[in-house]
Amino acid sequence: MRVIRVAIAGFGGVGRATANLLLARRDRYRQVHDADVRLVAVCGSRAGLADPSGLETARLDRLEPGLSGPEFIEASGADILIEAGPSNFRTGGPGLAYLRSALSAGRDSIVISKGALVHSGPELRALARSTGAMLKLSGAAAAALPTIDLVEHSLKGCRVLEIEGILNATTNYLLDAMMNRNLGFEEALSRAQAGGFAEADPRSDTEGWDTASKLILIANFGLDADLTMDDLSVEGIQSVAAHDIETWRKQGLVPKLVGSLIRTNGAMRAAVGVRTYPLSDLLAHVSGKNKAIRITTDTMGETIAIGSGTEPLATAAAALKDLEHILTTRAARATLAE
Amino acid sequence: MRVIRVAIAGFGGVGRATANLLLARRDRYRQVHDADVRLVAVCGSRAGLADPSGLETARLDRLEPGLSGPEFIEASGADILIEAGPSNFRTGGPGLAYLRSALSAGRDSIVISKGALVHSGPELRALARSTGAMLKLSGAAAAALPTIDLVEHSLKGCRVLEIEGILNATTNYLLDAMMNRNLGFEEALSRAQAGGFAEADPRSDTEGWDTASKLILIANFGLDADLTMDDLSVEGIQSVAAHDIETWRKQGLVPKLVGSLIRTNGAMRAAVGVRTYPLSDLLAHVSGKNKAIRITTDTMGETIAIGSGTEPLATAAAALKDLEHILTTRAARATLAE
Repeated sequence: MRVIRVAIAGFGGVGRATANLLLARRDRYRQVHDADVRLVAVCGSRAGLADPSGLETARLDRLEPGLSGPEFIEASGADILIEAGPSNFRTGGPGLAYLRSALSAGRDSIVISKGALVHSGPELRALARSTGAMLKLSGAAAAALPTIDLVEHSLKGCRVLEIEGILNATTNYLLDAMMNRNLGFEEALSRAQAGGFAEADPRSDTEGWDTASKLILIANFGLDADLTMDDLSVEGIQSVAAHDIETWRKQGLVPKLVGSLIRTNGAMRAAVGVRTYPLSDLLAHVSGKNKAIRITTDTMGETIAIGSGTEPLATAAAALKDLEHILTTRAARATLAE
Repeated sequence: MRVIRVAIAGFGGVGRATANLLLARRDRYRQVHDADVRLVAVCGSRAGLADPSGLETARLDRLEPGLSGPEFIEASGADILIEAGPSNFRTGGPGLAYLRSALSAGRDSIVISKGALVHSGPELRALARSTGAMLKLSGAAAAALPTIDLVEHSLKGCRVLEIEGILNATTNYLLDAMMNRNLGFEEALSRAQAGGFAEADPRSDTEGWDTASKLILIANFGLDADLTMDDLSVEGIQSVAAHDIETWRKQGLVPKLVGSLIRTNGAMRAAVGVRTYPLSDLLAHVSGKNKAIRITTDTMGETIAIGSGTEPLATAAAALKDLEHILTTRAARATLAE
């Protein structure tokens, strides 16, 4: 049985959920992949823990100060890095240094935070190619909602003509609340914040940046595009007023914050903004905290996926889906090299 | 560049659409897969054509009588078989002999017709395993709608708890027509037949057998179950009366013919029958000739996929998605063996 050593950098809610799910699935990895998967290191920004023989759940509450950073992960001997730190698409966030270090060393990497990939996607892709490392990002590109998966696997061979995505759960929840209670943006937001359904600083969600980030990842990693934030027109829901809501209700339309990509004459246009859908359109019925994507192709027509997993478990499961795809590829390589 | 020889057995509408799409994509296969894909043989039940250097579209209208059957395909030197003949789950149909022959010889096989897989799935799977041949069936398991793909790839690592599928487009169209015009089954069917939206003998669709067949394929090939038609309770839409429709409309419910699987205590229960959904359920909005599947897992919640491709092109594209997955695996094997 092959030993596979995994490290997790970024140890907030999603990092912890990923660690716990990974440890809970060790029997599955043995049975399905003939792999002894060990969690050899975890770290947040200031503390961490490492053990080459593998950490157990009970120890994850007692991190040691000072154990953090790319060198700490390097020293752990990990074969695979899972990056789950805070996301910042303007700087790349702490994930950028972890990923540069891991991919340079040929270490397969699973990315959950979007920042580094939006900021330096082409550089990281090139780095992965040059060392042969696998770079997976299901957790970053809308988590449990399959997006790049669909393009790369389920629609393989088709030419993607257009993509529309309801990619941010918070804004979908807010727009729903506004429609159901005829509220303007500010009022809906303060109620949602009071109920814990929106962040204290909600701008990444409400101004469309989170949707734009996911759209860029889908375009660049799923469709081999080369978009940056500057290529996108990005509008959020912050200027939606109560009278807009009233008008849409009268017209039988449902507003959604949508990231869209359209391919015309070889060029790709991408935008984020509010679109309204009649009730005859399935996207009008994607409510609450659900996310959805509609992919139109030349030969398979429209394919829609809708996801509704509970966080942080669903994102952890998305990252560990990537882990299993890496295990499968590694096993195939190892078998054939024997 | 590797030469890959493909044969198509079964040359009705879907077989022809598959041949034409394959020929139209040859440039893509060269560029993406470094493969020179040649269509070396096609045949229907009584006529066919073979050419080891590859057939072109123009020749596909001039099949020669007598060229048909598993021996004809064997002699063509094909590396990969695409089976697209008429489907019969009671006998296995003509596909069974083609698949036995191809898989015994270690030939990778792409199956579009459901009959042989429903009739002799375990035997064919065992045969494929014993010779190392790949056996793919996207075209049979609901075509452009991703089903097994989702379970095997997008939800990898998750435990599937439940599946509900609107897997048959004809019955979905009929139920829609009944609801919109308050018709009983017989009247809706005769109008649909007059309009060309239902077969002259519609029983495979309306009595639920087509849905049941797809459900068995999803269970056996996606969830490693071992179901036969005898394990299923199968009810169709033929007994839905105008007064049922009226009652559901009054209650705000939408009827769908659903194939369902549920896993409890290790056992799997499968059934086909009419279920009704409130308008708050997305499945209520899957209308017309669309198909859908909802997969509930332990860690990713509910994932729904909805497909709406136009036939026979969408089914051809599904079969050729399988072809590309085979080309990818073959290329990986060949590279590593070098």
